[in-house]
Amino acid sequence: MALFDKFAKLAQDRAALIQTELHPFGTRIDEIYSPTEGRIGSQRVVLAGTNNYLGLTLDPDSIKAAQQALAEEGTGTTGSRMANGSYGSHMALESELADFFGRRSVIVFSTGYQANLGVIGTLAGPDDIVLLDADSHASIYDACRMGGAQVIRFRHNDAADLERRMRRLGEQAKDALIIVEGIYSMLGDQAPLREIADIKRRLGGYLLVDEAHSVGVLGQHGRGLAEELGVEDDVDVVLGTFSKSLGAIGGFAASQHPEFDLLRYASRPYIFTASPSPSSVASVRAALRALRARPELRTRLWENAHQLYSGLAGLGYQVGPQASPVVPVVLGSPQQGMAFWLGLIERGVYVNLVLPPATPNGQALVRCSVSAAHTSAQIDHIIGAFAELAITSREAAVNS
Amino acid sequence: MALFDKFAKLAQDRAALIQTELHPFGTRIDEIYSPTEGRIGSQRVVLAGTNNYLGLTLDPDSIKAAQQALAEEGTGTTGSRMANGSYGSHMALESELADFFGRRSVIVFSTGYQANLGVIGTLAGPDDIVLLDADSHASIYDACRMGGAQVIRFRHNDAADLERRMRRLGEQAKDALIIVEGIYSMLGDQAPLREIADIKRRLGGYLLVDEAHSVGVLGQHGRGLAEELGVEDDVDVVLGTFSKSLGAIGGFAASQHPEFDLLRYASRPYIFTASPSPSSVASVRAALRALRARPELRTRLWENAHQLYSGLAGLGYQVGPQASPVVPVVLGSPQQGMAFWLGLIERGVYVNLVLPPATPNGQALVRCSVSAAHTSAQIDHIIGAFAELAITSREAAVNS
Repeated sequence: MALFDKFAKLAQDRAALIQTELHPFGTRIDEIYSPTEGRIGSQRVVLAGTNNYLGLTLDPDSIKAAQQALAEEGTGTTGSRMANGSYGSHMALESELADFFGRRSVIVFSTGYQANLGVIGTLAGPDDIVLLDADSHASIYDACRMGGAQVIRFRHNDAADLERRMRRLGEQAKDALIIVEGIYSMLGDQAPLREIADIKRRLGGYLLVDEAHSVGVLGQHGRGLAEELGVEDDVDVVLGTFSKSLGAIGGFAASQHPEFDLLRYASRPYIFTASPSPSSVASVRAALRALRARPELRTRLWENAHQLYSGLAGLGYQVGPQASPVVPVVLGSPQQGMAFWLGLIERGVYVNLVLPPATPNGQALVRCSVSAAHTSAQIDHIIGAFAELAITSREAAVNS
Repeated sequence: MALFDKFAKLAQDRAALIQTELHPFGTRIDEIYSPTEGRIGSQRVVLAGTNNYLGLTLDPDSIKAAQQALAEEGTGTTGSRMANGSYGSHMALESELADFFGRRSVIVFSTGYQANLGVIGTLAGPDDIVLLDADSHASIYDACRMGGAQVIRFRHNDAADLERRMRRLGEQAKDALIIVEGIYSMLGDQAPLREIADIKRRLGGYLLVDEAHSVGVLGQHGRGLAEELGVEDDVDVVLGTFSKSLGAIGGFAASQHPEFDLLRYASRPYIFTASPSPSSVASVRAALRALRARPELRTRLWENAHQLYSGLAGLGYQVGPQASPVVPVVLGSPQQGMAFWLGLIERGVYVNLVLPPATPNGQALVRCSVSAAHTSAQIDHIIGAFAELAITSREAAVNS
């Protein structure tokens, strides 16, 4: 088969679905007015589909730090961390993160995707077993594939199912790697981490928690779900990203294991890539200071999360299983999802449309996400747009 | 086996080799004075081990563009290109690159590593055959592994060996993907691309050229080896990076194929990652303008390359097969390599040390690289340091 023919089916599917110039798959955002407002074409929108949880992307301190790093160290390092790409600032960020998480070692990666690839794919090789929540992020699946580990999936957020599968492994369970996420990106729900930590205490194994969506969001100090539930000592490796609450790009892994730092010498996605730009590093350091110094950002984020969650639930929409900065709304067919997404844009609201197979039960969903930077009035505006569309949908149903 | 035990051998090997606080594997660069000068600890060094080929990392236009993007669009997009991470500037960069390369489609990725993973790993699936130069970069090997294609390696830069292996494939050769690099990062040599293009014309197949080290370096307009040799029409996909001559971070792929743009909808390392930061995009756009407007940077780079190559060859060192901005020097055992690297640092020269298995024949090599920003005096300084170490080595040999 010719190399490009594999895209023919994809082209058909897309053509059937995308019949408007404006569509949700790579929407061009033409202007950014604030962490929560932008312009798409001629439409001013409230941004309710970003991972800008603390609203720090336009924080003056982060911007100033990044601008200064540009002037002093330049636009890039043009080298990997193993060669000429480890500046004093990269190492300072690693030790500041180690201090924040109270862990011995932190390794910084150029993207969150590469952090997952570089840590999971290196830790879990062909002789290892990974026990994976079935709803894990694509980067975790890709990492397992790259490392070649044997993957055993357990039902999403089902600790009992994990325990059954662990027991079936017998002695092998002691060396298996359990992987869960702090907050799942699609439904906004949290892992049952207390129960999972308990299973690990009883049956052995290693526990890795991807706190990409929960750092800065959960826990008294913002360290994520493990802090929130008081089980940090049971977590062997914390994974995280700089492209959500910390507002930049990159990722990291933190661990207490004395051997963890050796991963630098074995991890191909760490070794064979350019290191993070000095400006990214500088803005992340500033954002981490803000995350630590301004717990009111987390308070504000949760007020907004509750307002949106209860507002949409109150309209009769089927929302996610728990209040969360990520609020999914189940919509029906992909075509209905597309129409709904466009209706929201027309009403000045940008959200993410997610289609099957990335969603459960073959249903489209729109994923809203809130930021500490949203005003209560903006959240009301989002709820108002959903209210209008609910009425429109009912009228359409009556008239059809 | 416990998960971390796999690092025990690595720990031993490293401990045997690294007996000094300062070592070449993740050297901390404490200060950057210019694209070609920095400080490591108390030692001021000429940077002769970066990929800063055009010296643009501290270009005032690039820095200013990046600083402005920070102020206007923030420190990050906090979203993927498929969701909220496609700003007008990402699309502008893609069309400017398409114009530069004279190709229909360009897709921008968050790192060069992910560009290779995302393009090769998606194009070449389990039903496809990849013919790969044996010295290909790690990211290309990782991409093939991720995609699951059948990989057939041919001898480094040996077009006849490629042809033999293509012929053995019979009809299957018509759909196979041939992958080579413009300039190989380890030895600085160039692919025999005219001969390879000729094989493709006769036997079929697709040709992908990774021009990571050759964009901005080769070709009348800086488009790389394919331009230099007049075979751009034979190249199906050009891969490249922003972290070398363009001085930032990120990668791209360019192609003329009408279906190429659909890859966005299938490529997991494109879909499931945060998009490049606005500041990176802005600095790359400025650097691309400089690359196009200032061909004298390429002239200067090649003057420096020839000066260093002939200088080190003249001292009797075993250098790479051809003059290049990458000048490798073969050194002997890993221990000799370590001592030599430290000797160069003491003499104010920073280069990269590369050890087996990443090098041919089990020998250590130091890899020097030059920049358009090096002065002739700096190149002389580098050659002078090698000259002193050559004398020291000979004396040590006599006295031992």
